Order: sequence, then structure tokens, then C-alpha cells
Amino acid sequence: MDVNRSAPYNGTMELKELQRKIDILSSLNITRMFQKDFLLTRDKSEDEIRAVLTVAEVLRRMRSENISPRIFDSGLAVAIFRDKSTRTRFSFLSAANLLGLTAQDLDETKTQITHGETVRETANMISFLTEVIGIRDDMYLGYGHSYMKEVSGAVREGHREGVLPQIPAIVNLQCDLDHPTQSLSDILHLIHHFGSLEALKEKTIAMTWAYSPSYGKPLSVPQGVIALMSRFGMKVRLAYPEGYSLIPEIEELAVKNSRAAGGTFHRSHSMAEAFAGADIVYPKSWAPYEVMRRRTELLKAGDSQGLEELETECLELNKKHLDWECSEELMERTEDALYLHCLPADISGVSCERGEVANSVFERFRLQTYRQAGYKPYVIAAMMFLSKVQNPAAVLSQLLRSKAARKNPFPASG
Amino acid sequence: MDVNRSAPYNGTMELKELQRKIDILSSLNITRMFQKDFLLTRDKSEDEIRAVLTVAEVLRRMRSENISPRIFDSGLAVAIFRDKSTRTRFSFLSAANLLGLTAQDLDETKTQITHGETVRETANMISFLTEVIGIRDDMYLGYGHSYMKEVSGAVREGHREGVLPQIPAIVNLQCDLDHPTQSLSDILHLIHHFGSLEALKEKTIAMTWAYSPSYGKPLSVPQGVIALMSRFGMKVRLAYPEGYSLIPEIEELAVKNSRAAGGTFHRSHSMAEAFAGADIVYPKSWAPYEVMRRRTELLKAGDSQGLEELETECLELNKKHLDWECSEELMERTEDALYLHCLPADISGVSCERGEVANSVFERFRLQTYRQAGYKPYVIAAMMFLSKVQNPAAVLSQLLRSKAARKNPFPASG
Amino acid sequence: MDVNRSAPYNGTMELKELQRKIDILSSLNITRMFQKDFLLTRDKSEDEIRAVLTVAEVLRRMRSENISPRIFDSGLAVAIFRDKSTRTRFSFLSAANLLGLTAQDLDETKTQITHGETVRETANMISFLTEVIGIRDDMYLGYGHSYMKEVSGAVREGHREGVLPQIPAIVNLQCDLDHPTQSLSDILHLIHHFGSLEALKEKTIAMTWAYSPSYGKPLSVPQGVIALMSRFGMKVRLAYPEGYSLIPEIEELAVKNSRAAGGTFHRSHSMAEAFAGADIVYPKSWAPYEVMRRRTELLKAGDSQGLEELETECLELNKKHLDWECSEELMERTEDALYLHCLPADISGVSCERGEVANSVFERFRLQTYRQAGYKPYVIAAMMFLSKVQNPAAVLSQLLRSKAARKNPFPASG
Repeated sequence: MDVNRSAPYNGTMELKELQRKIDILSSLNITRMFQKDFLLTRDKSEDEIRAVLTVAEVLRRMRSENISPRIFDSGLAVAIFRDKSTRTRFSFLSAANLLGLTAQDLDETKTQITHGETVRETANMISFLTEVIGIRDDMYLGYGHSYMKEVSGAVREGHREGVLPQIPAIVNLQCDLDHPTQSLSDILHLIHHFGSLEALKEKTIAMTWAYSPSYGKPLSVPQGVIALMSRFGMKVRLAYPEGYSLIPEIEELAVKNSRAAGGTFHRSHSMAEAFAGADIVYPKSWAPYEVMRRRTELLKAGDSQGLEELETECLELNKKHLDWECSEELMERTEDALYLHCLPADISGVSCERGEVANSVFERFRLQTYRQAGYKPYVIAAMMFLSKVQNPAAVLSQLLRSKAARKNPFPASG
Repeated sequence: MDVNRSAPYNGTMELKELQRKIDILSSLNITRMFQKDFLLTRDKSEDEIRAVLTVAEVLRRMRSENISPRIFDSGLAVAIFRDKSTRTRFSFLSAANLLGLTAQDLDETKTQITHGETVRETANMISFLTEVIGIRDDMYLGYGHSYMKEVSGAVREGHREGVLPQIPAIVNLQCDLDHPTQSLSDILHLIHHFGSLEALKEKTIAMTWAYSPSYGKPLSVPQGVIALMSRFGMKVRLAYPEGYSLIPEIEELAVKNSRAAGGTFHRSHSMAEAFAGADIVYPKSWAPYEVMRRRTELLKAGDSQGLEELETECLELNKKHLDWECSEELMERTEDALYLHCLPADISGVSCERGEVANSVFERFRLQTYRQAGYKPYVIAAMMFLSKVQNPAAVLSQLLRSKAARKNPFPASG
Repeated sequence: MDVNRSAPYNGTMELKELQRKIDILSSLNITRMFQKDFLLTRDKSEDEIRAVLTVAEVLRRMRSENISPRIFDSGLAVAIFRDKSTRTRFSFLSAANLLGLTAQDLDETKTQITHGETVRETANMISFLTEVIGIRDDMYLGYGHSYMKEVSGAVREGHREGVLPQIPAIVNLQCDLDHPTQSLSDILHLIHHFGSLEALKEKTIAMTWAYSPSYGKPLSVPQGVIALMSRFGMKVRLAYPEGYSLIPEIEELAVKNSRAAGGTFHRSHSMAEAFAGADIVYPKSWAPYEVMRRRTELLKAGDSQGLEELETECLELNKKHLDWECSEELMERTEDALYLHCLPADISGVSCERGEVANSVFERFRLQTYRQAGYKPYVIAAMMFLSKVQNPAAVLSQLLRSKAARKNPFPASG
């Protein structure tokens, strides 16, 4: 099996083809993206989703051609991580850096963001020269997305009232509902693998739960994947053990999306059923919606004993499903499927005794998963670009014509 | 009451008016600012103070016109924070970023700055490419300002002796004596509110203590305010409960300044008296000078029990003055006064049960206080600019003529 | 004694002489440096060593002439510090900043780098826009250099397999075997002091152990110094108390290097013997190789009691050699020697009761040691430059001709 079908970076892409890609943007209705946040893919039209994918690809290829897409001479991109992160952090700061912004962490342990009053105050205090605020807040159901909207409301009020000369765009780096920078990177990876967005139509993707010896993994990745993939006519299969559902409204959203897009959405409690004949598999652990809901309430009540009991209960529950592992046997049931993972994966016999994926399967797709992750900086940069630039096609064309070098950018004369 | 009188950012300022502002600089005697630190406003002449205010305003408006004031292609701006900070930290790094410098924290927990030997060594070790060092050290009376002078002396020796190719300028981001970036932001806010620096003459400002359920707040804000405002012919009123004095020498300085500038300085122990007919009120908690002095000595002696006792004693003392709250009743005694605060404020019923200010008063002025804070990045940038550029008027004029874009700064040809 | 012989920065160097220095590069065989790491000086040819020294000097002097050597418009330089550091950290980020890269710490406490699997994964995940990775890992014998090679292997695989569009160059910021950025800074300092690399031939350098009341200081500085200085025909003397040997293979390497270069290598157990008639002395504490070896094994076994016992034993052992102090008496035995130290030094009566060097000796050479440290940012920048630029002489010439200003770099027209 050739898992290396997707084209590596090679720098041979013609500038003409790059211009053709930019021209696609002109045919999309994206006037509503300027000065807007990117919080949930479901809030974005298909044209807007296509615009993110297109700009991400253009920025990635401009880089291969050593053309700098730097559109800022100064400005900050503030990162607020309410959960530990290396990968997303580096993706965010790489994206900021590419466009000329300086990324800066807001370390909340050094602030007093505790109630409504200071969220809106701090949001303004850090934003006088801030163009983008990236937020990761995925730990508690009902909080992450709300927090992002609160920050967004605060800086928009600040702009309206003459506090801020610009509107910082909020970019969702993972919340309780969605993980748009992940799902859009995933789809770019699929486009590269299968040739085009159109080629994904009728492809079967199995988004399944998988066993992990850890507790409390967020729901945002599977939720983001089913909410997005269902919009492009794919055959989406969602599988998890009984009791491990996602947020019901988001499962419903995927059903509706599929109908509207002429695809299908199938839910089951069998990994084998989901894998059968699949073109793409995405086995990934998460905590059951009900557990996450109870956890949030225990946290609100400050019930630390209840929290410990819930953790023990949940880990015991997980152990009943040790067989939900992406094994060689299961992979053989697929249509030579592409394996996806948002990383890091729990690999059986490597990072844990029993995990989400058999070592031999992961190892075969390891470099593919690295490439999958490699689209994220460009997806984030595209979200920033589309919010901060009023006429993205014109600006990209000008950048292309100017051929400003990213490396060795000294004046060419002399 | 219209608390929104000050003009919001609107980008309509004519470049000609901006040039007129720059021309003002040429009439000021500021030759002594080049390669100098900014430690205390009292060390600066009136012309030098006016230069900071002018350059801050020019940089702010250039930004509204999307003109980049970037004067550095590389270089570091090191931040040393010996006290937690979000607001000042972001102001400092925003200012650095605007001018093209990369801000970098010096985390002292990772160093061994303990005695004279290593202060001077570390100061040089971090300064090989450093243009500015911002320091916040406001915790102990008799230390912050001394530390800044020690760092300044060390890098000046380093420059003189061929260790450093440039002199890093020290910018005081708050010390035990003064908080110049705050008081200069405050005065810029007043200039915007009342129309000009001249319009502040004869205006009455009430700098008063206010109740807070916390302990050990520094004296630098009220000290900075009375030391600066007294220089421009204002009627300065300082009010605090008996025993809550500031450093006596600084109160004396304000008396002298007022006399020289044809203003008045009035000290009392009544908030109501201070507020009566005031045009500006600045109610803000601080720890009594005597408490801070004892605290410093207990710290030197390593007397942790004594420190605990002092904290208890001081919090009990504060509780005798719960009525020192900026209430609606007190605001009604003023001449439709503008409320100032350096933020975050202790708001009654919001961030604490009883605090510095009534919720309704704060809420009415909330966005005004955000705007007040918004001048700080430009004040800091102006301090940097005036220290690093030998001919500020000529360089600002050149920046204005070049119209280098801050956003979308790619070559315009193509 | 004039310890200030080396020329301070003065900015009067002619551009012609700078061009002459650049031309030297064209005569060196450095084609193998492009896209390579800099891990150990022993892996580099004499031409390659000379290239680093030359480029470092060119970059330093371009800066004095206010010419920007910025070759990147964007890109990251990731710093991985597995040991606390201020000096090397600032040197690394200064070097990155000078060339246009944004330095970013990888904080491993926020990641899960624990076994081979995730080292290679994390190395790729942080590298999508990363041009350089600087690593300091000097704590355990047998680990630091191996870790650097592992990271290097991972990103090279990533590049080969289409994950990364560029190869991040690994720069060794100190490992268990070598400290090349230190030893190359040291030699640049000697070149400035004695006039040229050729002038070092036949000079006598005493690299000696010195007493310190601390435990576990790495071997990399003395190892780096003897491995490098022995290649240029110097008379290298290594002295330490019995039992305090360096890694035997590196002592052997120095012997071989000396023979090949026509110099000498002399090992003894007497500080006085090493100092007699020396032109350069480098007294510096380290932990014995045998202790470091046992320490690594105890750490692997998780034997915390054994580790405590080893520390006590080692500190007791050190105390038998209190007389290994760089005293005035010893300095008088030298040929008016230049004192070197990598800083911070343990200074008797200042940072400890008894230490590596007498206060009066250190104070006399204090500013010299600062200057010695001042070459490091340029050495690191040179390592980066030579790995990232295919034709260094051409690019440096172009930078010189373009005269892009580092400070005040706005367009000169207007």
C-alpha cells in the first residue's frame, strides 16, 4: 500500500497556477469575512469554507516559491491557551509570524480573569495593538465557545467606543463545540490525498471512538470532523460504544448537513461496521458527553471528591472497550483507507500498553499524520488573512507580483 | 452626563496637522533626551515632558493613518518585571513591536541576580543587541529606583568600556517612587478630554485614597500623579485618612512644583472636601508609607511572623475607612468630574464587597478608563523613540513623508 | 597591566576592509556547511571553523556600521533549553533576531517528550516554519549529543518525506561533549587580543580546574576548549586534581589535534605548573568525569538516595582542593596572561567564601570577560547563516552593498 501518494513540498508549482487559485477567490462570496471572527465552521457558508482552504493552499505554495505573504509591518497576535498545547501553539505563532505579526502568550496565571468584569477589561487591555486573538478553551462543556464570544464582544465594544483602533479577530484554536483549525487541516489533507474537494463526494469516512487509558479528552475533534465533512457530500459514519455520544445537537447538525449536501450520515456502535469499506478512518478517543457534562457540574460545585470518583468510573468504563483499537485486522476491512489522527495518538505498546491504534498501523501512516498536521499553520494564517484584509484576491495577487522574498529579502539592486 | 467627549480613533486627522505637531518638537529643548533613561518625571524638564506627550500623540495618529513608525530592523527590548503584570507588560511589548524591536522577558527565576556583582554582569549579558530595558520594581521602598539606576550604570559602563555597541535605555515601568508611564498616559487622557495641556491650568484634580480589602498596594501611582500634575498649574488636592501619607519628600515636591507653576496644592483628610467642585477625581487605594517602610525592614530581616502581623494590622486599619468609596453621592459634589483609574479598580459589589468605587460610577466611566489606559503603549514608545533617535522631528517627518504602511506593507509596484 | 588591549566597538572600520574579510570566505572550502547542523567543532574542518569566525566578525562589524544582515522576512528559531540559562538564551535570541527570525522557547514541561516516538513527532510538529533549532542539553553524560542527533534525524526525515519544506539546522548550545558557541567565542576574543588566528600559534593556554563550592558543573567548556584550541598550534596545558579527568576520548582527541597542528598538549595535576609562563589562563570548575558517569547511572536507576550521597561525597572531595584558586600569586607566574571565563565565575569573597578566582584578579579582567561573552551572539548568527545560505560570500557582499540600515531603516526617499 502506498501511503505516500500526497505530493510533498517541491517548489515547482508554477506562479501561473498560483494566480489561477487566487482567481477562484474572486468567484466566492466572502464579503462577510472581513473583520469577522472564526469560531465555528457551522457559522460559515460553503464559499467561506472554500475561501479558507484556498487561501491556506495559496499561502503554503507561496512559501514554497519563497514569496513572502507578510502583510503586517507590526502588530500582535495574542494566544490564550487555557489548556496545555505545543502543536497548536506553534501553529498559531507560525501563522502570525508568516504574516508579520508577533505572537504573544497571555499567561492567565499572571492575571485575574475571573468574572465578567475583568474578561471584558483584560480583552481590551491586551488589544491596543492586537490584530488577532487565538483562544484554546476546550476543557468544560458550555464554557469555551461562550468565553470566545465574550472576548469578541468585549473587543468589538472597545472598537465601537473608540478604545481600540482596530477589531482583533478571534480565532478558535479549540473549544468545547468545535475545532475548526483541525477539521480544515484534515480536509486540506484529504484534498491533497484524493485530488480535489469534489473528489471527496461519496467517499466514506469513519469517525470512530477508540480506546485510551486517559480521561477527559475533549469532544471537539470528532464534533468538528462530522460537522464539516457532512457538508461536502461525504458518507460520514460515526461510531462509538453505547454511552459515548457527542453533544446531541452536533450529531443532529451532521444529519441535517448530510441531507442537504446529498451525502449520508450513519451512526453505529460498531467499529468494524464503520470501517467496512471506508476510504478514510479517524479513530480517536474522547470522553462521553454525559461524563463531560457531569464533570462540568462537579467543577462548578467545587466537588473534588465527586470529580475523583467520576474519573475512576470513566476509566473503568473505558476498559470495557479495549477492543476499540485501530488494528491491522480492522484496517483490512477498509477500502485501503487513509488513516487520520490529530496527534498525539495513544499507540499500543509505544505510549501505552493498549491504545487507540496498533503500532504497525500508526507507523505506516506516521509521516502522513505529520503532513496532515502541517496544513494547520496555513489554515490559521488563512483565517487571519481573510479577517484582516478587505480584498484578499487583490492583495494576494499583489504579493505574488511583488515576489517579495521570504528568505534573503534584501534589496535586489546593488 | 456625556462621558464620551474624548475623540475616538477615526483616521481622519490630516497629515498636515500631524506635520504641525511634529514641528512643535523643533521648538523644544530636548537635546538631553538622546541616549538617556526615563526614570522619574521630576528629572525631566517641562520641554522634555511635552516632547514625550507630543511624540506619543504623533505615533498614535500615524498609526490611525496606517503609517508605520518602525525605526528598527532588529534589536531587543528586554522587560524585567519584578511584580506580576499584564497591562504594563502588553503596553511595553506593543510599544517595542511598533518601533520594530522584539520584546523579551528576563525571567529572574532563571537567573541569579542577587547582589551587586551579578546585577551589573547580567545587565551586560542580556544587552548585546538590546536597545531598551523596561523595568517594573515597585514592591519595596528604597529599592526599585535604586535597582534601575544600578542597571543603568552597568550598561553605561559596558558601553563606555567597549562591551556594548549601544546604550540600552532604561524605561521605568513603575518603581517605588514614580510611575511615569501611568501619569503621562493620564495627562494625555486629560489633554484629550479638556482640549489641550493649557486647558488643564486651573483645573482641580482630587487624588484621593480609597478603601480596598487588599494590602500592600504601591504608592507610585498617587506619587506620580501629584508630582506631575502639580507642574502644569493645576489645583491639586491630595486626600487620605490620617496615617496614610505618601513618601514625605514627594508630597513636598508637589508643594514646590505647584508654587513654581502658579497652581495650588492642598492636602486634607476628607474625601468629601477633596471632591467638592473637582473637575477630575482619581480615587485609588495604597498602603501607608509607614507600613511600606516597616514592611521593607521586616523583609530585610526575614521576619515572616512580623510580616503576617503587619498585614493583619494594615487590613484592620483599612476597615476603619470603608467610607472612602467613590460613591454617586461624592460624585455629585464634583463639577461633573472625570473619573480616572489606573485599573484594575476594586469595584464594590463586583470584584469585592466594598471597594474603591461604586459599581454605577465605575460602569459610567468604564470605557473612559479603557481609553485612559490606551495611551500607555504610545507613551512608552515615545520614551523609547526620544532616547534612541538623535533628531526626532526629522525622523518623524521622514516617516510621515515615506508613508510606509503598517498594514499591507508590500511594495506598491507590480 | 593593560587588560583593555582589545579594540572596542567604534564603527570606524572601513567597508572596504569588511569586503576584504568577506572575500576570505571565497577561498575556504565550505560547500558542506549548507543545510548542515553545528553540533561539535571536531566534526568541522579547519576551513569551516575559519568560516564561522569570519562570518561572526563580519556580522559584528556590519552591525557597528549600522548595516542590517537580515536575511529572513519570517521564520522561527526554536530554543530548547533542558538546563536553566540566561546568557546563552539571550545570545541565541539575539542572533535569531539579527537575521530576521523570531525566537521561540519550546517549554518541555508543556509537552510530552519522553521517548523516541514523541521526540521525532514533536521535532516535526514545531518545525513547519522553523529555520533553526538551538538545543542546550548538558546535564547527563551520553545524552545531550544523542538527543541533538535524534532531533536532527527527525527533521531530516520530515524534510525528505515532504513534511517540512525546509531543513531546520540544529545548533548545539551546549551538550555533554562540547560547547562550540563558547569555545568559538573564546577564540574570537583571543584573536582580538593577540591580533590574528595565526598569532595564537605557539601561545600557551592553561585550561585548569578550579575550586567551587557547587556540584555537577558540566564538562563541556573545558572539553570544548581543549578540543578546539589544540587545532591551531597552541601550547595547550590541561590541569586538574587527580580524579577530575574529562571524558578520556576528548583528552585523547586534543593530544592528536596538537600533534597534527604542530602544537603541544600537556596534562598535569598542578595549577602552578600549568600557569607558569602561560599567555592565557582559563580556570574553571567542573565535576569529575567519573562522578558525572555515576550520576547518570543513578539517575537512570532513579536512585535518589544514591544521588544525595554522591553530591555529598563530591562536595567533600572538592574541599580537598581549595587551593585551586586563580590567585594573584598564580597570575604572577604567568607571562602577563589574559584571564578567560565563560561566566558566571565563582569569585572568592563575592559570590562564595572560597571560589574559582580571587576577587582582585576577576575585577581586573571583569570587562574583558564581558567582551569575551559578547562574541557569542555573532558566533551563533554565523552558524545559522552558514547553514541557511548557500553562497555566504555573495549574500554578505550584497548585504554590504545594499547598506540596509539596522536602525532607522525607513525608505531614504521622500
